[in-house]
Amino acid sequence: MITYDMRDLADESLYEYLYRKIREDILAGRLKKGERMPSKRSFAKNQGVAVITVENAYSQLVAEGYLYSEPRRGFFVSQIDESLRLPQTAPLKIESEEVKSAGDSIGEEAGLPGISGSEAVPAAAAGREKGTEPGPPGGLPEIDLAQSRVSPDTFPFNTWAKLLREILQTKRHELLEPAPGAGIMPLRAAIAAYLLQYLNLRVSPDQIIIGAGTEYLYALLIRLLGTELVYAVELPGYPKTGRIYESNQVSVKYIPMDASGICVDALLESGADVAHISPSHQFPTGVTMPIGRRSELLSWCRESETHFLIEDDYDSEFRLSGRLIPPIMSIEDRGRVIYLNTFTKSLASTIRISYMVLPPALLQRYREKLGFYSCTVPSFEQYVLAEFIRRGYYEKHINRMRNYYRQKRNRLLHAISTSRLRTRTSVSGAEAGLHFLLYVKSEKTEAALTTLAAAQGVRVYGLSSYMAGGDRELRERWPEPCMVVNYQGLSNEAVDALPELLGKAWF
Amino acid sequence: MITYDMRDLADESLYEYLYRKIREDILAGRLKKGERMPSKRSFAKNQGVAVITVENAYSQLVAEGYLYSEPRRGFFVSQIDESLRLPQTAPLKIESEEVKSAGDSIGEEAGLPGISGSEAVPAAAAGREKGTEPGPPGGLPEIDLAQSRVSPDTFPFNTWAKLLREILQTKRHELLEPAPGAGIMPLRAAIAAYLLQYLNLRVSPDQIIIGAGTEYLYALLIRLLGTELVYAVELPGYPKTGRIYESNQVSVKYIPMDASGICVDALLESGADVAHISPSHQFPTGVTMPIGRRSELLSWCRESETHFLIEDDYDSEFRLSGRLIPPIMSIEDRGRVIYLNTFTKSLASTIRISYMVLPPALLQRYREKLGFYSCTVPSFEQYVLAEFIRRGYYEKHINRMRNYYRQKRNRLLHAISTSRLRTRTSVSGAEAGLHFLLYVKSEKTEAALTTLAAAQGVRVYGLSSYMAGGDRELRERWPEPCMVVNYQGLSNEAVDALPELLGKAWF
Repeated sequence: MITYDMRDLADESLYEYLYRKIREDILAGRLKKGERMPSKRSFAKNQGVAVITVENAYSQLVAEGYLYSEPRRGFFVSQIDESLRLPQTAPLKIESEEVKSAGDSIGEEAGLPGISGSEAVPAAAAGREKGTEPGPPGGLPEIDLAQSRVSPDTFPFNTWAKLLREILQTKRHELLEPAPGAGIMPLRAAIAAYLLQYLNLRVSPDQIIIGAGTEYLYALLIRLLGTELVYAVELPGYPKTGRIYESNQVSVKYIPMDASGICVDALLESGADVAHISPSHQFPTGVTMPIGRRSELLSWCRESETHFLIEDDYDSEFRLSGRLIPPIMSIEDRGRVIYLNTFTKSLASTIRISYMVLPPALLQRYREKLGFYSCTVPSFEQYVLAEFIRRGYYEKHINRMRNYYRQKRNRLLHAISTSRLRTRTSVSGAEAGLHFLLYVKSEKTEAALTTLAAAQGVRVYGLSSYMAGGDRELRERWPEPCMVVNYQGLSNEAVDALPELLGKAWF
Repeated sequence: MITYDMRDLADESLYEYLYRKIREDILAGRLKKGERMPSKRSFAKNQGVAVITVENAYSQLVAEGYLYSEPRRGFFVSQIDESLRLPQTAPLKIESEEVKSAGDSIGEEAGLPGISGSEAVPAAAAGREKGTEPGPPGGLPEIDLAQSRVSPDTFPFNTWAKLLREILQTKRHELLEPAPGAGIMPLRAAIAAYLLQYLNLRVSPDQIIIGAGTEYLYALLIRLLGTELVYAVELPGYPKTGRIYESNQVSVKYIPMDASGICVDALLESGADVAHISPSHQFPTGVTMPIGRRSELLSWCRESETHFLIEDDYDSEFRLSGRLIPPIMSIEDRGRVIYLNTFTKSLASTIRISYMVLPPALLQRYREKLGFYSCTVPSFEQYVLAEFIRRGYYEKHINRMRNYYRQKRNRLLHAISTSRLRTRTSVSGAEAGLHFLLYVKSEKTEAALTTLAAAQGVRVYGLSSYMAGGDRELRERWPEPCMVVNYQGLSNEAVDALPELLGKAWF
C-alpha cells in the first residue's frame, strides 16, 4: 500500500499533504490510470491518520478530476495526459474551516430529501456579478434572485478606511507619480504572492496587468490577440461575455457545455481560435472542469499557433467546500493560457479592479502593441488594495465571506427542505459559488414559472436566460425548467420566506 | 457708435458683459463681416467704462476669432457662418484674476527681447499628460521637459481626505450599490453644472458618460461610431491619440494643422469621417481655433451622415489669460459633436476619471449598443469627486493651480530673458496650458540639440517628436528646430537653472 513519509510534511495540514503527494504520484505516472486507491479506512490506518483526513484528500482529488469514485467499489485514478507540467510542489495554504469534517454537515450530507449534489445533471451553482440583466419580468417583486449587492455589514469599511488614511498620509509622492500602464508594482507583487499561496500559480509580478474590470481587460485582450481571430464562449454562460466580444466586432462562437465543461469536439469543429472559459467554476452551470478535460483543452491549444485559452477565474475564492481549484495556467508551460480574475466579486462590484496574467510571449507582445496605454485604475485604490492583500486582510475577508455565504446557503437549503419545494425540486451544485440551480418538477415552462413567481413578489431567472446567442439545438441540450438561484444579496428574512413563496406560486 | 444698455448687465463683470453683447451682435449679423470696431478709447468713453475693460473684451473676442486686429488700424469683425447656433446668453462666471490688467505683465507685454507671442508661427504652448514618451535620450538628465508630475504640495490632499472619510461614513449603502454604466448621477450632475457655468455648455447629466481615462473613452467611441469609419487626428499632435486609434484597428488619417487649427481642405480630401480635435488648445501647437474655422468644421459635419467631431478639451481649464474658450459643442445643435474632458490633467494623472458628453441621437445608440458595459471608475472615487466639485473645491483648486502655473511660466520666461537664450530663441504661445514652444535660432537639427541638452542634464523634446504618423511632406510644413517646453513638473530651482543649462548646451 502507498505510504507517505510524514517527514515530508511541510507547512500544511495533513489532508493537504496527502492530497499533494497523491496528485504528484498521479502526475508522475507512479499511480496509473484505472488503479484502485486503498480504501479510506485502510489507508488511514496504514498512514496513521484519521479517516476524515483521507476522505478530505480524496474528495479534493475527485473535485479536481484526479480520482473518480464508483459506488461501493471505491476510488480510482483518472486518465491524465502525461504531457501536463508537474505543478510546483510548494505546499498550498488552505483555510482550515474549509475542510469537510464530521461535524460540518451541509445540504447533501444531511440527507435532505429532494436535494442532491447530482452528478448526472452537469450543473452546479455559480455566482457572478450582474446588474439588472437579464430583464426583469413585470410586477414589483420584493425578492430578486439576480441581485448581487454586497451588504454594507459585510464589507470591511473600517479596515479600508484605515488603509485609505494611511496611504493618503504616507504615499503622497507616489500617489502623484505617473503609474506604469500595467499597474503599480506593490499591487502586482501582492497578487503574485496570493496566486502562489492559494492557487499554486507561480508567476512574476511583471506578468500581471491591472485593469478597471474584466470587461475592460477582455477588450484589451482582443486587441492583443487580434480582431481577426474567432472567439469561443460557453453556452449556457454569462450573457455579457458574448456581448462584449460582439461589441468589439470580433466573430463569436457559442460552444455547448457538458458535465465536464466546454465540449472540446464542438470547439474544434467551430474553428474558434480563442476559448473563453471558467474551468474552476462555470457560470451558470457551476461545472468544475476535471483534470482530464483540462488536459484535452491543452491538447487543443497545441494544434494551432492561434489557439489560446482565456481562463476567467471570476469567483474561485468562493468555493464553499474543499480547497480552491488550481487554475489551468498552473499546469501549462507553453504560454497558451491567459489567467483573469477580479476583486469586483470578492470585495464589491463597485471596486473596479481586475487583473490578467499573461504568459511571457504575450507579455512581450503586450509591451510592444499596448504598453503605451495608461492604467485605468486610480493609483490610490491600487495602493490601498495592495496593503489590504499584503497585510492579510484580504485573506481574512475571503474566509469570513466564505463562512457567511456557506451559512446563508445552508439556511436556504434547510428552508427548502422544510417547504413544499422539498419533493418537487432538486438542487444542484450547492458546493461552490453564491448560486445554485433549482430544477423544478413541473410541466410548466420556465417563462410561466417566472411569471407565477413574480406574482408572489419573487423575481426568478431561468437557465434559458443564459442561453442568449445559442441556437435552438444548443438550448435543447439542457433540461427545463431550471432556475438560477443567487442568494448573495438575500437577507435572512428573504431566505426564510423564499421557498414558501415559490411553493405557493408553483404548486 | 454701438452702445450697450448697462441695465442688461447680469451677474458678470463689465468686461464679460461687453464681450457677451458684442459676440451676440456678431452672431446675429448686427455687426457685419469686415466692419471696423470703434477704437478702445472712444468705445470706453462712449460706454462709460475704463479702457482696460474694452481691451479685455476685445482680446477675448480676438482669442476666440470673432474679431481680428490689424496693426495701427484697429479691430474688425471676422467672417462668421450665420448658421451657427446662438449660444445661450446666460452670463458666464469668470475668475477675476484671469482678466488681463495693466499690472499683470506676462512675457510678451513686458517686452522681453526675443520672446513673442508670434502669430506668424501658428504655435502656442500646450500641456498634456504624458508618461515617459517620446523616448528619452541617453545619459542621466536631471530636468525632464516631458514630465507632467503634479507636486504633492499642490494637490488638495486634506480636502480629498476629508471627503473620503465623509463618503465612507455616510454612503456605505450607495458605495456597494451596483452603479449605472455611465457613472453615478451626482457626479454627472456636478459636471453638467460645471460645464454650464464655466464653458457655456448646456447639457443634461444623462448625456454624460464617465470612464477611466480618455483612452478608455476613445475605444468606447470607436465602438459607438463604428470601426468601419475613418478617423482623423491632428499633426503635429499628441502621439498617443493616433496610436490608440491604430491599436483599435481603425483607419487613421493624419491631417496637418495651420495657424487656425486642423486644415479643413485636407480633412475633406482625406475622406475621413470622424475628426479628433482640440480646438480650445491644440497640443503641441497650442493653437486656439477661431470661430471662423469652427464654423467651417461644422459645415464639414453637415456634408455626410458619418461626419462627427470629437472635441477633446483635455486642458481647457489651464488657459492662463482671458476667459475659458467655449467648446464647439456649445454652438452646435445637430448632434455631430462629442465633447471629451478629463480630471487627469486638472487634478492628477493618477486619478483616472474622464467623461464624454454625447449628443442625444448618439446617447440613444450608446444605450442600445454599449449600455450594458459596467462603469470603469470606482463608485467611491466618483462620490468623492462629485462632492469636490459640488462644494466648490474644484473651482478653487483650478484657480489656485492656474495662478501657480502662471507664476511658474512667468518665472521661466524671466529666466530665459536674462540668459543667453534671450536673443537666440523665441517663445511662442505662453498664454495657455502648461507648455510653450521654444524656437531655437540654430543651424543644428533638433536631434543634435536634444543630444547636446542631454549632456547638460536636460531632457528636451523637439516638435518633430509629435509628428509620428505623418509623412515627410507634412513634417516639413513646420519650422525646425523647435522644442516643446513643459514646465508643469519643474521645481523653481529647475526653472531658474534651465535657460542657463540650455544656453551652455547649444551656444
